[in-house]
Amino acid sequence: MATANLARSVQDRMQDAIGDLKSLLGDRLTTAEVIREHHSHGESYHPAALPDAVVFPKSTEEVSAIMKISAKHQVPVIPFGAGTSMEAQVNAIHGGITIDMREMNKVVRISAEDLQATVEAGIPRKTLLKALENTGFTFFIDPGADATIGGMTSTRASGTTAVRYGTMRENVMALTVVLADGRVIHTGSRARKSSAGYDLTHLFVGAEGTLGVITEITLRLHPQPEAKGAASCNFPSIRDAVETAIETIQLGVPVARIELMDEAQVDACNKYSKTNYPVAPTLFFEFHGDSQRNVEDQAETVKELTENHRGMGFRSFTTPEEREALWKMRHEAYFANCAIRKGGKMFTTDVCLPISRLADCIVESKKDVATCSFPAPVVGHVGDGNFHMSFILDPTSAAELAEAKVVEEKIIRRALQMGGTCTGEHGIGTGRKKYLLDEHGAGLEAMRAIKQAFDPENRMNPGKMVEPHPLFGDGSAGK
Amino acid sequence: MATANLARSVQDRMQDAIGDLKSLLGDRLTTAEVIREHHSHGESYHPAALPDAVVFPKSTEEVSAIMKISAKHQVPVIPFGAGTSMEAQVNAIHGGITIDMREMNKVVRISAEDLQATVEAGIPRKTLLKALENTGFTFFIDPGADATIGGMTSTRASGTTAVRYGTMRENVMALTVVLADGRVIHTGSRARKSSAGYDLTHLFVGAEGTLGVITEITLRLHPQPEAKGAASCNFPSIRDAVETAIETIQLGVPVARIELMDEAQVDACNKYSKTNYPVAPTLFFEFHGDSQRNVEDQAETVKELTENHRGMGFRSFTTPEEREALWKMRHEAYFANCAIRKGGKMFTTDVCLPISRLADCIVESKKDVATCSFPAPVVGHVGDGNFHMSFILDPTSAAELAEAKVVEEKIIRRALQMGGTCTGEHGIGTGRKKYLLDEHGAGLEAMRAIKQAFDPENRMNPGKMVEPHPLFGDGSAGK
Repeated sequence: MATANLARSVQDRMQDAIGDLKSLLGDRLTTAEVIREHHSHGESYHPAALPDAVVFPKSTEEVSAIMKISAKHQVPVIPFGAGTSMEAQVNAIHGGITIDMREMNKVVRISAEDLQATVEAGIPRKTLLKALENTGFTFFIDPGADATIGGMTSTRASGTTAVRYGTMRENVMALTVVLADGRVIHTGSRARKSSAGYDLTHLFVGAEGTLGVITEITLRLHPQPEAKGAASCNFPSIRDAVETAIETIQLGVPVARIELMDEAQVDACNKYSKTNYPVAPTLFFEFHGDSQRNVEDQAETVKELTENHRGMGFRSFTTPEEREALWKMRHEAYFANCAIRKGGKMFTTDVCLPISRLADCIVESKKDVATCSFPAPVVGHVGDGNFHMSFILDPTSAAELAEAKVVEEKIIRRALQMGGTCTGEHGIGTGRKKYLLDEHGAGLEAMRAIKQAFDPENRMNPGKMVEPHPLFGDGSAGK
Repeated sequence: MATANLARSVQDRMQDAIGDLKSLLGDRLTTAEVIREHHSHGESYHPAALPDAVVFPKSTEEVSAIMKISAKHQVPVIPFGAGTSMEAQVNAIHGGITIDMREMNKVVRISAEDLQATVEAGIPRKTLLKALENTGFTFFIDPGADATIGGMTSTRASGTTAVRYGTMRENVMALTVVLADGRVIHTGSRARKSSAGYDLTHLFVGAEGTLGVITEITLRLHPQPEAKGAASCNFPSIRDAVETAIETIQLGVPVARIELMDEAQVDACNKYSKTNYPVAPTLFFEFHGDSQRNVEDQAETVKELTENHRGMGFRSFTTPEEREALWKMRHEAYFANCAIRKGGKMFTTDVCLPISRLADCIVESKKDVATCSFPAPVVGHVGDGNFHMSFILDPTSAAELAEAKVVEEKIIRRALQMGGTCTGEHGIGTGRKKYLLDEHGAGLEAMRAIKQAFDPENRMNPGKMVEPHPLFGDGSAGK
């Protein structure tokens, strides 16, 4: 069937697929250019690429039917959440059918006794948080953006609280997934642990929609802490700040957040969010505990550590208002950066290292960008060894983009040499494919064997993640 | 090549393989019956099955060479650690070459700053703990037995401390693996998180040696807690005990251990370990904290919860000696059970449930065994929803074994119906293969696709885990 169909032109096959999808979904299929444009990109510098059509399924069964139509006519599909991804994971670089999951946005079940919630993939993070209010439990992973839970699962997202609560890897317990041929599988279970068979759940977490379409997710919840606190402290150098973070982790202080900003980032945030932090490398902490006393103990321990590393002006934030203002400022860093350079386009690095090498990597990378044409403030999820340099580019300048790519490559090669990874939480998409071979060596072949086993016709988000890259592959990516 | 070789008898191919292995390893290959017998079984009721030869490689390169010989002559291999597995994972049911990993027992690196250790797969758990002494860090996963880290990785082991520190799934960061054709891959990295490609690490964790031979493991370490405490409390019913455990977890008390014993298990342990706990359903707690005060706070909170659930005789154990005596008793439960019935053979169930269903499942399962011919005491890692019934069988009685299998099937089907899994930590091996289809449905086909992609010739520990089972498959297991 596939062969017969492939003999026809891709345009003809696409028209047939759209016809079948129209019969299936009616108004929930669209080919309107404005909608396709909206689905052609995430939040980054990557060039937009329009799908041929966008569909809005309401159930796993409909997603299964869509995948069968994709199989029948041999056309690509691209799963789409909130469009907040950073590495072009949603761009339809080979055209195809974009599956917008946002009509699948229900909470299926909250099980407080089991500290679990099951949700449909298209539910936005903040909608879930709303549904969890007054249950005593919450979902802590916070990538900043109001991404969908399905999107966060597919990019193995994390953010500021991963140091205590883990990433999506640690918080997804079970999945419903539609495979390339339309089969529906359920991975994992509602039990907290299992030794029953291969770990399919973790195979789909972070696969960027290249192995299947995730339609339901069972998440681990955490109790709302009885007490919270926050603090900030600035340092004479990045190294002092990072050493403080390392010792905090080593001592086992269960910090809920430990975020780094360099002086350029603090300056940008002060200007945008009207705050007045000293313009210096700064750590921001959040503490969660089962009592006020426990939170104060954590803060006291951390304060002592900062003093051992030349920390200055340790500030405690004890009221909810102060804490909110602090994290509002942190979450506005993206907009603060946009404001540095009117109309600037963001290019964000995302390396993650063994924490012992983090200070070295940041210090060296700051030297790399010192002579660049664009600003490059630094934020870091420093408890995880992960930091971002935000290159704020002139969107009309090909030269700046080229310059950015050269610097990113330098930073990534340094991180790999230090035992790290090219991406801590943003993913591979298209832009980082060329680093997978360096990072994984022969492991990349194993990944491709998995792709081949699950999607032999390369219809699942083609051109992303592990597919052969022109630089070292056979160049036959996509259709 | 494979086809040509398969035309020859398996005996001839095995003799050729043994010849090649002898050239490679000299004395580190043996065909002595006493050694083969020693490698023919783990710790359970499953019938022993001797390999044709046992090899003792000293490096990843040697394991790679062994796999190339396996490929050349098309003979099976079975990775072997300490032989403490419970589900015949190491039994050579189709003959072949057993790779005893215990000559690969070095600590490769301890990185205190990164809270990581890299070890060779054959290192026994207690040897690693010894190496970590005086570093301030330790590795908490404790399945009871002195298993090798490679064996624990391959069965996705856990044990008494998983409630706080997670299972091998949460604590393995990176692996070196030799694939079926001898290729060596490195999965994961030393960074705490990554979004770079498919999660190969979690694919090998729990794969029981059916996808590759794990030769090196990078583990997450945890700081030694500043303070520890322990407690016990007995209850009028299993349900009261389990409700107490649920509330402890819900409140976010970070208990390091929360273990259940039923009255039969307490009685057996009292007799064997000369303790005097009241013969009633009992919870045993361990608390880890960054201060004595923090530990006392945890104990106080838990004490209140026990009182809300008719707990009686709450005992705190504050000295190291008392705590050691408590956990010694708990770890001797296996021997205590053996002593109930002289020469008895152990058949252990291992279901794991959403914790909200745990009490129901234990209560119902105790009814199932009430009329059985053998004793069946219960221990539970109750914070995880995991419990074991230990059927203590007459090793000469086929009737008792048959009876045990019928009861286990009842218990497993109940657990699956309640949203749980057939095995929380012991694995599939041969005995539980028939439940994988019920548990995973079409997901089992996805697992088989992975097996096919990684080991198309079915040489990696054949007959275990996902291979077609005679009950529902094509019956063509093994050679």
